[in-house]
Amino acid sequence: MAVDTMRWTGKTLELLDQRALPQKIEYLSCRTAADTARAIREMVVRGAPAIGCAAAFGIALESRRPGDLEAAFELLAHSRPTAVNLFWALERMRQALARGGASSLENEALAIYRDDLAVNRAIGAHGAELVPDRARIMTHCNAGALATAGHGTALGVVRSARDMGKSVSVVANETRPYLQGARLTAWEMVQERIPVTLVTDSMAGFLMSRGEVDLLIVGADRIAANGDVANKIGTYTLAVLAQRHGLPFYVAAPLSTFDPNIAQGDSIPIEERAADEVTGYRGSRWAPDGVAVRNPAFDITPAELVTGLITEVGVLRTPSRGGVAALLSRSRSGA
Amino acid sequence: MAVDTMRWTGKTLELLDQRALPQKIEYLSCRTAADTARAIREMVVRGAPAIGCAAAFGIALESRRPGDLEAAFELLAHSRPTAVNLFWALERMRQALARGGASSLENEALAIYRDDLAVNRAIGAHGAELVPDRARIMTHCNAGALATAGHGTALGVVRSARDMGKSVSVVANETRPYLQGARLTAWEMVQERIPVTLVTDSMAGFLMSRGEVDLLIVGADRIAANGDVANKIGTYTLAVLAQRHGLPFYVAAPLSTFDPNIAQGDSIPIEERAADEVTGYRGSRWAPDGVAVRNPAFDITPAELVTGLITEVGVLRTPSRGGVAALLSRSRSGA
Repeated sequence: MAVDTMRWTGKTLELLDQRALPQKIEYLSCRTAADTARAIREMVVRGAPAIGCAAAFGIALESRRPGDLEAAFELLAHSRPTAVNLFWALERMRQALARGGASSLENEALAIYRDDLAVNRAIGAHGAELVPDRARIMTHCNAGALATAGHGTALGVVRSARDMGKSVSVVANETRPYLQGARLTAWEMVQERIPVTLVTDSMAGFLMSRGEVDLLIVGADRIAANGDVANKIGTYTLAVLAQRHGLPFYVAAPLSTFDPNIAQGDSIPIEERAADEVTGYRGSRWAPDGVAVRNPAFDITPAELVTGLITEVGVLRTPSRGGVAALLSRSRSGA
Repeated sequence: MAVDTMRWTGKTLELLDQRALPQKIEYLSCRTAADTARAIREMVVRGAPAIGCAAAFGIALESRRPGDLEAAFELLAHSRPTAVNLFWALERMRQALARGGASSLENEALAIYRDDLAVNRAIGAHGAELVPDRARIMTHCNAGALATAGHGTALGVVRSARDMGKSVSVVANETRPYLQGARLTAWEMVQERIPVTLVTDSMAGFLMSRGEVDLLIVGADRIAANGDVANKIGTYTLAVLAQRHGLPFYVAAPLSTFDPNIAQGDSIPIEERAADEVTGYRGSRWAPDGVAVRNPAFDITPAELVTGLITEVGVLRTPSRGGVAALLSRSRSGA
């Protein structure tokens, strides 16, 4: 993309303000870990891999300042609960600190950022093999360049398939309440000149029933040791519909999204966000006073509904506890 | 409800403008069939039974004016394509015209309106028997008093269950793109002091997976001879999810919603509405330029996913072609 999700200036972290997209392209400047934690919490930056990168830069910012680096780790760790890449990136920064001291933290953050870009390109290459020519690919939320250091996970697969010469088109579910599909995925695809059709989340089943979708690819915020997937609210419903219609349902995610310490999906913490995201949108309210609200930001898709997990080390078909363990050991062995 | 969906003054049809709810309670005055057809097309009034009542009053308005009554029938018949109650009501008005002449049309429209209220109370009474005490009932769109002459179909069941002394609560899906759940169902339930929780359409599956829903009740816009149900977009998805979670999925509708001339659901015409309903809401646009849009207003739920059809003559469990035919013959025989 012509627009970067984040930029490191050496003194500040410049975050593309995703709340304002696609109407405005604005960067928000973070000078401290607290600035960065607030930007993550308020969804200036979102998407599991991008959150991880931003948090690493947040630590790098704090490493030049007087004060308590431990407090910065704590603050960032409490910015959002579900995406495990946040904790993975902070752990990598802790290890760098232990190994090389505070002066090594900027380089480690830059390495996390560059690694993520390379990982996304590898995910794209593996995933593109699964995409038939002329595929109509449904996706949910935004697992694109905007959710990562660049290229994207689910949309990285779409980009790589297109770059291989395949003709592909995308059906983007709008993804209420925060409209990442309507605002971010649609915008990325329009910029790439990849044909994209926007629908409300409630229309996905209708399109599948009419034979207008060939496969689904989504991202992930955390994947449990048994292959259960936490991802943006609505993902589970799509997986159930895909199963009914015999459509492949792929999850594209880096190994940093796997959490071997969580046995299964129902143990993954699900963030519940503010009611005003559901009662309206951005200051405009359409629901009446007196209504209660639920606003879980993620749901759990059981591994049995996942056709394959697309990672940077390859595709794990019909995910299982053993398969996930083998996948992660390939990573640790440097395969 | 304290607020009427429509009022007949003898000279005008006053329609509660449902586009402005719940923020404003305003009536739009119709003096002609053309006024009424426009109000139906633009969703001032919506909901299959309410559309039928409004169309009947539209003919009654035109019967006092000089000019072509046949053109008025045509105009109203082309206002919206999916809800069969529209055509049912116009046919009843045609029969009254043939039988009693133009002077009989006002009384026939009033009879259609009063019948609908009685029918909804009967639906409520039959349906309420199916609702356990302390049931958490999920519904979609608005099949309430606002969608009918009063009381409602799906929400009529909720009201009747409450009136029987059962403690019930409602989960309202917001129902993008037009937000009938967030604006209309939530408002009706708040007015009735029935506890209501608003969620986005994408959250329904999550709530079912967590055991937070006991049964589902929706309305219908047209029911085919085999029991397939056309209803607001997103209904099919809820039925698939309900099946997966072993939850009862009921459809509450008057016999005027059945179309014995349509063999099965895939022959029901599905209205495709304007793109700007999906790219934003009410003049506020959030999707980027250059995106294509699909906007089917309804989908088809196959009869196999329907636990029971709740009508004014009783509940048809596990709907089938034979069962629907028997149900309709009970109506014709005056049972």
